[in-house]
Amino acid sequence: MTANRKERARDGVRAVRWEDDAVVILDQRRLPAAEEYLRLRSVAAVEDAIRNMAVRGAPAIGIVAAYGVVLAARGHYERHGENWRSEIGPALDSLAACRPTAVNLRWAVRRMQTAFAGIQGNPEPALLAAAKRIHDDDIAANRTIGKLGAALLVAPSTPAGEGRGQAARTRSVTSLPDPLPQGEPGSRDDGVGILTHCNAGALATGGYGTALGVVRSLHAAGRLGMVYVPETRPWLQGARLTAWELERDDLPATLCVDSAAGMLMREGRIGCVIVGADRIAANGDVINKIGTYTLAVLAREHGVPFMVAAPLSSIDPQTASGGDVPIEERDGAELSHFGGRPIAPAGTRILNPVFDVTPAGFVRWLVTEKGVAEHPDPARIAALFGPA
Amino acid sequence: MTANRKERARDGVRAVRWEDDAVVILDQRRLPAAEEYLRLRSVAAVEDAIRNMAVRGAPAIGIVAAYGVVLAARGHYERHGENWRSEIGPALDSLAACRPTAVNLRWAVRRMQTAFAGIQGNPEPALLAAAKRIHDDDIAANRTIGKLGAALLVAPSTPAGEGRGQAARTRSVTSLPDPLPQGEPGSRDDGVGILTHCNAGALATGGYGTALGVVRSLHAAGRLGMVYVPETRPWLQGARLTAWELERDDLPATLCVDSAAGMLMREGRIGCVIVGADRIAANGDVINKIGTYTLAVLAREHGVPFMVAAPLSSIDPQTASGGDVPIEERDGAELSHFGGRPIAPAGTRILNPVFDVTPAGFVRWLVTEKGVAEHPDPARIAALFGPA
Repeated sequence: MTANRKERARDGVRAVRWEDDAVVILDQRRLPAAEEYLRLRSVAAVEDAIRNMAVRGAPAIGIVAAYGVVLAARGHYERHGENWRSEIGPALDSLAACRPTAVNLRWAVRRMQTAFAGIQGNPEPALLAAAKRIHDDDIAANRTIGKLGAALLVAPSTPAGEGRGQAARTRSVTSLPDPLPQGEPGSRDDGVGILTHCNAGALATGGYGTALGVVRSLHAAGRLGMVYVPETRPWLQGARLTAWELERDDLPATLCVDSAAGMLMREGRIGCVIVGADRIAANGDVINKIGTYTLAVLAREHGVPFMVAAPLSSIDPQTASGGDVPIEERDGAELSHFGGRPIAPAGTRILNPVFDVTPAGFVRWLVTEKGVAEHPDPARIAALFGPA
Repeated sequence: MTANRKERARDGVRAVRWEDDAVVILDQRRLPAAEEYLRLRSVAAVEDAIRNMAVRGAPAIGIVAAYGVVLAARGHYERHGENWRSEIGPALDSLAACRPTAVNLRWAVRRMQTAFAGIQGNPEPALLAAAKRIHDDDIAANRTIGKLGAALLVAPSTPAGEGRGQAARTRSVTSLPDPLPQGEPGSRDDGVGILTHCNAGALATGGYGTALGVVRSLHAAGRLGMVYVPETRPWLQGARLTAWELERDDLPATLCVDSAAGMLMREGRIGCVIVGADRIAANGDVINKIGTYTLAVLAREHGVPFMVAAPLSSIDPQTASGGDVPIEERDGAELSHFGGRPIAPAGTRILNPVFDVTPAGFVRWLVTEKGVAEHPDPARIAALFGPA
């Protein structure tokens, strides 16, 4: 591996950036066929990009929305001068609501609004600084999440009997299924086999990734086995994005169908399931890509720990439990057609919810930049937000 | 519904038939876009059709292979006269091995070979009669399986307290999750919500279907709720075949992604999971489409009964357990490409096993034409084959 590629594996692609006067995003609809970037110069363009999934992933959506607030403020200041604050409301409400499930979108828009108060004159410089802070904070959070998550999976290097005083953060996985023969992907001797879902990588965040941040950190620690990547129907985030991202960064990846997860766990290939989250409720319920709940049930059945890696901005203290979260249903054409070609009979009834709810009881570790909640519950979630 | 359509719903499509001098099959690769039939006039053509999945489904493969033996015998008789028997071996061995997992293929070829002994002169008439008997027996078996399976899900019409003496065959499902509000798909008042997988319908068999045979019988009894159809990656048997078959026959169907199964069960929409089988081991382990094991784990988690509907020809007494069955891996291009277009990065490592093993302990009912094995084990499986 060249130094350049090593650097990539450490950091991952940067799918969102501010450049001159616009937010520039990697168009995730075009991957892996093409690496094309879109320049978004208005809040309407940002809203379209989020709605049409040119950008996706809860943290990335939040960051792009923050830059969208900068663009909205610029437009309103140009048109309304000092009255920009009183005119901008509807545009921000529309932006905050353009996808319903991920909480980071609303969180980022509201956080940007808290920066409005002290601004004099042209709001762009102050708001751009605020948006960049959100972006930088997210990358820093992901690096911390990666370290904390990887530490949970890495056996302490101290001899047995020593280091017992260490917190759960450095505990090795003790409930792995029978190991595969040495050298098999996923075997303990070959590092920890990981099963992820959808894409919770650099592409889904400001950079580095949440679930894939843990993967990167595990790789840096020399303990990463094979990363199994379910293709993640219907949008194929696994095949198109996660496989692309891991391939690009020289991390070991094996693509499979979503429904192979049970077999992989039964064969003992998986040491930990690691996913991101679109929203986490105050009680620890996790709302994430459809299929996450299925993986959580399988993990418990096989004694495989289930880890959720997400920044605090994905936790919504206002959402009491998973049942309170609106689950987005997208167009049935995502199932009935592929590249314009029908793959189901015309007129077939289709159910296409794109998220599901995993009850907190299935989560072994919720890893955030503020620490790990083991077996998360309302008190442990609240504790992540700091001293009462 | 017209009488004609009602008739269809009772019987389903006939995807395999003998016509004049050839076996004619519905090309399942072209569905649902086109309903095209292939005329196969040689055993080589039959072998290609099986290998390339123009015909699929364990029982259907067996039936087409039986007709393939007729074509092989015809060819060898034309070339070798009375010596056809001593020349035909390699062609039949090749046919029997062209897909490794489903046992019906080998079973049908071997059963046809037992008919060789008494034949004088041209073998075609006697072998054609033997093949048609295999075909007719399969349809009759499916009708019986349908009745037995549906009876397990239909509440006895007798008032509570009566009819207790009835066998398990007429027991209603007692472990359904909390019912959905009346009128919701899958609610008890709306009939029994079914989750199937892949295609175990008329298309996969001689006609009528195994899992979908139970669905047809449940519909005839007025107790069918919604049939949830996972698309079944990578080959999309659910989207392309099962949805097509149910739509054609006016049976209620809702297509979803494979990974939605957990959510559907958690919402209480599913009263029973019903699948077919490519092979059943002597201990009751079930080898079926990849993802079947995942559904079995989810069903147990949610207290939903898991039913396997299959003819005796799918049970292999020579296979001690699921671990002894070769699991076919197909080309990774089934995941990396769609319609010739890449949907994963070039060079991605791919794991594409097309079957998995569901241990017998997950099976509530194994429904065959010879009766139901509840919680199947070696003794109950052996009992299906008749008195010792």
